[in-house]
Amino acid sequence: MKAGINMGVYTCNTSMKNEAFFSSDGDIMIVPQLGKLSIMTEFGHIEAESWEVVVIPRGIKFAVEVTEDCRGYYCELYDGHLQIPDLGPIGTNGNANPRDFAIPKAKYFDETNEYRVIQKYLGKFFEYTIPHNIFDIVAWHGNYYPYKYDCHHFNTMGSISYDHPDPSVFTVLTCQTPDHGQAALDFAIFPPRWLSMEDTFRPPYFHRNTMNEFMGNVAGQYDAKEEGFSPGAVSLHSCMSAHGPEAEVVEKASTCELKPQKVGEGCLAFMFETCYTMKVTKSFMHDLEGATDSYSVNSHKAVDESYHDCWKGMKRLFDPNDPDAGYKKYLSEHKN
Amino acid sequence: MKAGINMGVYTCNTSMKNEAFFSSDGDIMIVPQLGKLSIMTEFGHIEAESWEVVVIPRGIKFAVEVTEDCRGYYCELYDGHLQIPDLGPIGTNGNANPRDFAIPKAKYFDETNEYRVIQKYLGKFFEYTIPHNIFDIVAWHGNYYPYKYDCHHFNTMGSISYDHPDPSVFTVLTCQTPDHGQAALDFAIFPPRWLSMEDTFRPPYFHRNTMNEFMGNVAGQYDAKEEGFSPGAVSLHSCMSAHGPEAEVVEKASTCELKPQKVGEGCLAFMFETCYTMKVTKSFMHDLEGATDSYSVNSHKAVDESYHDCWKGMKRLFDPNDPDAGYKKYLSEHKN
Amino acid sequence: MKAGINMGVYTCNTSMKNEAFFSSDGDIMIVPQLGKLSIMTEFGHIEAESWEVVVIPRGIKFAVEVTEDCRGYYCELYDGHLQIPDLGPIGTNGNANPRDFAIPKAKYFDETNEYRVIQKYLGKFFEYTIPHNIFDIVAWHGNYYPYKYDCHHFNTMGSISYDHPDPSVFTVLTCQTPDHGQAALDFAIFPPRWLSMEDTFRPPYFHRNTMNEFMGNVAGQYDAKEEGFSPGAVSLHSCMSAHGPEAEVVEKASTCELKPQKVGEGCLAFMFETCYTMKVTKSFMHDLEGATDSYSVNSHKAVDESYHDCWKGMKRLFDPNDPDAGYKKYLSEHKN
Amino acid sequence: MKAGINMGVYTCNTSMKNEAFFSSDGDIMIVPQLGKLSIMTEFGHIEAESWEVVVIPRGIKFAVEVTEDCRGYYCELYDGHLQIPDLGPIGTNGNANPRDFAIPKAKYFDETNEYRVIQKYLGKFFEYTIPHNIFDIVAWHGNYYPYKYDCHHFNTMGSISYDHPDPSVFTVLTCQTPDHGQAALDFAIFPPRWLSMEDTFRPPYFHRNTMNEFMGNVAGQYDAKEEGFSPGAVSLHSCMSAHGPEAEVVEKASTCELKPQKVGEGCLAFMFETCYTMKVTKSFMHDLEGATDSYSVNSHKAVDESYHDCWKGMKRLFDPNDPDAGYKKYLSEHKN
Amino acid sequence: MKAGINMGVYTCNTSMKNEAFFSSDGDIMIVPQLGKLSIMTEFGHIEAESWEVVVIPRGIKFAVEVTEDCRGYYCELYDGHLQIPDLGPIGTNGNANPRDFAIPKAKYFDETNEYRVIQKYLGKFFEYTIPHNIFDIVAWHGNYYPYKYDCHHFNTMGSISYDHPDPSVFTVLTCQTPDHGQAALDFAIFPPRWLSMEDTFRPPYFHRNTMNEFMGNVAGQYDAKEEGFSPGAVSLHSCMSAHGPEAEVVEKASTCELKPQKVGEGCLAFMFETCYTMKVTKSFMHDLEGATDSYSVNSHKAVDESYHDCWKGMKRLFDPNDPDAGYKKYLSEHKN
Amino acid sequence: MKAGINMGVYTCNTSMKNEAFFSSDGDIMIVPQLGKLSIMTEFGHIEAESWEVVVIPRGIKFAVEVTEDCRGYYCELYDGHLQIPDLGPIGTNGNANPRDFAIPKAKYFDETNEYRVIQKYLGKFFEYTIPHNIFDIVAWHGNYYPYKYDCHHFNTMGSISYDHPDPSVFTVLTCQTPDHGQAALDFAIFPPRWLSMEDTFRPPYFHRNTMNEFMGNVAGQYDAKEEGFSPGAVSLHSCMSAHGPEAEVVEKASTCELKPQKVGEGCLAFMFETCYTMKVTKSFMHDLEGATDSYSVNSHKAVDESYHDCWKGMKRLFDPNDPDAGYKKYLSEHKN
Repeated sequence: MKAGINMGVYTCNTSMKNEAFFSSDGDIMIVPQLGKLSIMTEFGHIEAESWEVVVIPRGIKFAVEVTEDCRGYYCELYDGHLQIPDLGPIGTNGNANPRDFAIPKAKYFDETNEYRVIQKYLGKFFEYTIPHNIFDIVAWHGNYYPYKYDCHHFNTMGSISYDHPDPSVFTVLTCQTPDHGQAALDFAIFPPRWLSMEDTFRPPYFHRNTMNEFMGNVAGQYDAKEEGFSPGAVSLHSCMSAHGPEAEVVEKASTCELKPQKVGEGCLAFMFETCYTMKVTKSFMHDLEGATDSYSVNSHKAVDESYHDCWKGMKRLFDPNDPDAGYKKYLSEHKN
Repeated sequence: MKAGINMGVYTCNTSMKNEAFFSSDGDIMIVPQLGKLSIMTEFGHIEAESWEVVVIPRGIKFAVEVTEDCRGYYCELYDGHLQIPDLGPIGTNGNANPRDFAIPKAKYFDETNEYRVIQKYLGKFFEYTIPHNIFDIVAWHGNYYPYKYDCHHFNTMGSISYDHPDPSVFTVLTCQTPDHGQAALDFAIFPPRWLSMEDTFRPPYFHRNTMNEFMGNVAGQYDAKEEGFSPGAVSLHSCMSAHGPEAEVVEKASTCELKPQKVGEGCLAFMFETCYTMKVTKSFMHDLEGATDSYSVNSHKAVDESYHDCWKGMKRLFDPNDPDAGYKKYLSEHKN
Repeated sequence: MKAGINMGVYTCNTSMKNEAFFSSDGDIMIVPQLGKLSIMTEFGHIEAESWEVVVIPRGIKFAVEVTEDCRGYYCELYDGHLQIPDLGPIGTNGNANPRDFAIPKAKYFDETNEYRVIQKYLGKFFEYTIPHNIFDIVAWHGNYYPYKYDCHHFNTMGSISYDHPDPSVFTVLTCQTPDHGQAALDFAIFPPRWLSMEDTFRPPYFHRNTMNEFMGNVAGQYDAKEEGFSPGAVSLHSCMSAHGPEAEVVEKASTCELKPQKVGEGCLAFMFETCYTMKVTKSFMHDLEGATDSYSVNSHKAVDESYHDCWKGMKRLFDPNDPDAGYKKYLSEHKN
Repeated sequence: MKAGINMGVYTCNTSMKNEAFFSSDGDIMIVPQLGKLSIMTEFGHIEAESWEVVVIPRGIKFAVEVTEDCRGYYCELYDGHLQIPDLGPIGTNGNANPRDFAIPKAKYFDETNEYRVIQKYLGKFFEYTIPHNIFDIVAWHGNYYPYKYDCHHFNTMGSISYDHPDPSVFTVLTCQTPDHGQAALDFAIFPPRWLSMEDTFRPPYFHRNTMNEFMGNVAGQYDAKEEGFSPGAVSLHSCMSAHGPEAEVVEKASTCELKPQKVGEGCLAFMFETCYTMKVTKSFMHDLEGATDSYSVNSHKAVDESYHDCWKGMKRLFDPNDPDAGYKKYLSEHKN
Repeated sequence: MKAGINMGVYTCNTSMKNEAFFSSDGDIMIVPQLGKLSIMTEFGHIEAESWEVVVIPRGIKFAVEVTEDCRGYYCELYDGHLQIPDLGPIGTNGNANPRDFAIPKAKYFDETNEYRVIQKYLGKFFEYTIPHNIFDIVAWHGNYYPYKYDCHHFNTMGSISYDHPDPSVFTVLTCQTPDHGQAALDFAIFPPRWLSMEDTFRPPYFHRNTMNEFMGNVAGQYDAKEEGFSPGAVSLHSCMSAHGPEAEVVEKASTCELKPQKVGEGCLAFMFETCYTMKVTKSFMHDLEGATDSYSVNSHKAVDESYHDCWKGMKRLFDPNDPDAGYKKYLSEHKN
Repeated sequence: MKAGINMGVYTCNTSMKNEAFFSSDGDIMIVPQLGKLSIMTEFGHIEAESWEVVVIPRGIKFAVEVTEDCRGYYCELYDGHLQIPDLGPIGTNGNANPRDFAIPKAKYFDETNEYRVIQKYLGKFFEYTIPHNIFDIVAWHGNYYPYKYDCHHFNTMGSISYDHPDPSVFTVLTCQTPDHGQAALDFAIFPPRWLSMEDTFRPPYFHRNTMNEFMGNVAGQYDAKEEGFSPGAVSLHSCMSAHGPEAEVVEKASTCELKPQKVGEGCLAFMFETCYTMKVTKSFMHDLEGATDSYSVNSHKAVDESYHDCWKGMKRLFDPNDPDAGYKKYLSEHKN
């Protein structure tokens, strides 16, 4: 049906030798978290490491070489293709700028050894061999190619007055469904940025989302969760399940002085957000329990059974007798 | 043809008594700069003063009362209607929030005196009388009504990393033509806001615009022009005529330290931006020459003949031998 | 620019002999009111009389033969082409059914006499001769052709409960501009129909219209104006000028018993409604003053100077102290 | 995938105490047929009874209190949201008017008892407890909320000349799929209305529908089926299965005099119409067989095995030798 | 869900007597390859044989009579309906012209024998009887009907300079999904045509397709595969599996003189191309193994296990040291 | 209004020295016919000669140097921008391929002499001076730039069976208006190509066009007019004025043998086609009468008064008694 998505975590420590892989099922986005990936594709060579993301379109053969333990996230998208969103009032510059997407140049291997090709088709794997290196492309042109993007280039937008916008403002790439506004995949990042909003609770507010949020942490400590969401971890908030910053973050954000503040120095969290409701695979829920520390989802435990405890102890700060208190204060202070 | 626009400056010091006005030609936006307008409409009463804007749709009768000298800007739009732009990645909150538009309640005058109605139709004025106060509406419902918006409510967005977006990010209301992206009118404001962008020339950059920019100053000193653009003044930059901050502003912005900075405290400049090329009326070019100071366009002169001098003396700062110097510096400093 | 419209009244009593006409400027709609038109076109022969309408597309040559005094209305549309509107919830049947449009069959004249062709181009007339009858087409196929429609076939919709819909519900054909909802031309008719709405003021209500309404009367007495709008007359209500049924009609409709009632037996009024603001030609305002009775616009006078008197003497029926009285009565009577 | 639908019949006689429910799978429409539902939602309180319909959007928590035996219909829609259809030529008023949708006001319960929340997600049920009444919302704003509509307000349209339109003309709310014209759900009603069409077979004609029709009867006797479709009953006509009025109704409608007639006084049937092909659940086919009378689908039997008998005995009225007889008669009678 | 497709090969040698079939699941396209089909439908009679294709829409009853052994291809499309593609720059004439689609006229059987109707619904078969010939329709009008198209009428377009376009240029009919450019079904043909391109490798080039290609051969020898793809055979190239002309064809096409050449005289291959990924049924893979010769897929074997051998022995013709050699030669020869 | 177009012929023999020009009114397309233009732009240098076309967008400054007598065509387009048309079934390759548009690289002049800039705005010319060479751009990026296209690269499509498509199939670039299908400008070319259509009258057929056709001849002899349309000439066929090949061409094309034939070797005619109706300027009609030979429109006469004589003497070839003769012949010959 060419619709749907799957996503998860990858780990690897061995290079593909004389073999290549491609998926007939969809485009693959790779978000390295640990270790450098050296990816040979039919369109040329891509080096990717932490803070970079790679997209390899449906049907394009590639092979990965590694020289260290690697870990990261991936998403396979069965619908269409990712693209920079229409920026609306943000205009022609901002968010991910087109000039910052790196596209490989053709590279040619003239070798006649046996080569193994593995194909993923309708969720199954097939393979065949071919009597030469399949990466024998001397040149290419067109508009269908793999690419990478370095998240350091992201031109982050946000409020510079009060309040804060939806996390959609952090969207790097999107793949819309024909139902406008329903994305098969939004790839959003939470990079270092300046918060200077006045009279505002600055962390992401509590919300229910008709989309499903798969979050990962590439580096550092995510600003809405101070503990337990270490790099390499995954959180999944499904359709319409309420969530928000943990109690401690709420407390701090409600009482601190609101001067301009740089958050997330050296940190990068990200979100795969999709309109498709997601099922967790059995292997993710159970098999990882015996996994070694380094590849577990969240500091030594595959599944964090006490995740919801982070919201316990939230103080009741709201006065039902005067619900508009804060808004009225803001207006009185700013009119003039 | 129901297409096109006219805009300008109004001044008034006398109330309309037993008379009302309406335009069959288009919607009227009013941007008061000096003095309070008390506007009676068929839908009820609207009080408007500096920092507020009023929109009265085509065909709606209104009468203005004033108790002091008043001055401001207006724009009459022959196309469709103004609306909040699709915010794109900014999402569901931000810029002008729907809840902040104030809509009048019906108000009833039960009077049988003679009432004079002046109609503007195809640019000409017609009038007739009617034997009762025309503001005799006890109730209304529907989605076609006058409204006002207080620019203090504007939730300003901007860059919170580096660079800065197009001024389109400041759009309050827009009226698109069928040619997507070509607005018959964008109403944008430059309110107080935090600038915290790093490694960035922060004022509006030099540019040529396929749109035509009519700027006005409601209050304070506009941050891209330190002198001569006093409140009540107008600047007009036509299609594809290059412009940008004045030499002094460029000098300062290029050498100052880039810590977070609140700009525009107490200031409000705005822009009527339109895809239609504009002609300046004869009266604007000549008749105002004898006008008194208080209503002149720009400190004592109707037309500022030396406006382009503000760009003289711009230093040559750019090194053609290493054009990417700044960008390379940014990347080296931020990768890690 | 291929945009705009002109409309008016035609009268004729002489046939075109060995000559033909075409307009490069737009499609022509003809609404005969008196007398039968025998129209030869390149696509074949069309007979048209009262209650029928004919459309001849841009560039199609035609010649008119008449055998009696004829009068009627026409409209020349510079935009696109007329089509049946998307019926929305009305679905696949209703209003003008596609099967009821009559399309001519090719007819061949094999004559070698001199033939004169008159062309209208950019509002001017050009002519040339050709050494044979230009109506020498033996066959045609395609989807660009003249046609006629008999308004007796119109499947009129309306309210069958309470209230009544916009006159747009009577639309036979429409030509939309790229600005969705703004029609360059709506051709609507007011044919015989059953009114059975309960608790309702049944005539067209008072309104201001952003469109311009050019009404004509083909036959009978129009139900919103009991006098003075005789067949052959024209009324023009421009953009946002308020209008509605005359005082006498209001009085009757407010007091009569609301049993099912067939209105308009033998009557046909129609409306050319356009988003373009219209200017009345000088000849229409002045030259007709000396015209003979039979072709005057409105019972013996070219322009009805006292048209607005029809609204004089309207009783004040509304109680500002209880504006919802009628609605509350309706609900109380119908809940059960 | 966020696409699809399920629908059925509910019965209940016990209130939810200290518990709430929400569905992550879709919006829920409730059509009460017997008994009053008192629905507490996060947005406030909704009272709903026969002739009213309630919509609760995806993810919104609610609890139902009842004080009597209740029965009705529901539909859960996995796609987007219901909205008033674009009315086409019907214009700005008609069918369901926006002003008649009732939206609750926030209501606050300040209680610290244990509260149980049941979530439906991907067709399964989950639950958790929370140490306070979850209905503790003091205020809300936005455009995502539950609402109810009273079908007495429906402004029914129909033919007022001859023939009759598709039942789509009775559409109250619709949810379109991206394939324009294919609705995930159309909610249509058959309320009391005036039939005055001339020369017309007035009941719904025989048809096959590419949509699937789930009909219910809220009150009275449906005019196309005189027996056996009692209030509370359901009929399901699947994609492209032919159906129409029963033989007796056909007989009557073909011979009766066609004067204006009010049909359906005190009656309300409705239709859930969907482009998705439907499977009947096993429980609906079998388990209801032992159900008590009052909740059975159709007078004492869960499934009406002889439903198709209602079409037996249809007389053959059509003359193949002169198929256009009726149409020719109509034209001859109405031309003049 | 009304989305998806199935396709395959049919064989038959017995007529349907007193029975009819219809599918509630989708539209059926029939591509006869051997033998004449006499198809009675509710809309009239259609004779179809080799080079013709028939489309029978969802829900329309039909019965097939045959007088000889018949074989052909079919496709059942669950989405919308097939239509002539928007021809883009090809304009108003070309490819399949609307005038060449043959639509049946109503035909009436006045018989009272028992008639059996078989319905396909959700992939299952149901049946019922009715006491008269169901083909008793005397007349019909509307825009939903079965039709046939004779591929001899196809107005084939192609390059008349150099290079050659995508096979999409051979599209006869298409059914788009809401995702623009993704067709649920493209029906394309490869009819006789003139190849006159200069400096061009003329056969279809090697490619991977995001669509799935089901090819059949109606008559003659397909020009990209000289052996083994006999009439009645099927080839299936799934999403992103590379394919192209066989080695021998490549050799010939690379060395032959490029004068204008008529290809495919008397030949007709075709393609069902769909965005939906396809599974081969078990019966197609295995059960046909014992089938008799005449109906086997590919000369005596149900599945051609050595299909990929056709690409063996491809010569290496490309010089990586000068990849643009050919293009440069072309330009040098044609500039003047 | 940013809508409309003007087009014409340019001649020049003097270079622009220390001066530059730009138009605020629209994009300029230049079609050199004689002589080489060396165009300096803000984006770099473009050399253009016969067979090439140049587009310079609104507001971009440029200066032209020439070293010989030059002549050619130009068009200034006030609407949007030219782009490659959506190719429809032609697919991803064909017509003008994106890779063949040549975009300049930045070029830097570091000079401090006085520089004069001429601006065209609302049809008038303005000028100012600036104290340095304005072509001092060291680098640029973006998607708004001048470019050139060499028509030798055009991948011409056409019929390869019978009949021939609309000239729209030769479209290189288009600028659509919001009214889909109505182009503000189509730029089409008639390059060398192979005609191999069978049973076809091969020259462009007689037609009336709702668009206005401005044709020019860059090189050689245009195949539909054998005499009098020399290189440098212009023909203008306005909206709905009938035209076609001259009598002699008709005669030849009707009697010649239809073997594959290369037409237009060394020839290039082109068309500016626009939906806007055009007025010929007075200077074009009159002032050119005294012009020297080399720049006259059509061999020694500014206006060809006898142009219509080319259609005189057309033989009558058509038999009204058997109009389908040709089509029936075609079918009988090709069925098999």
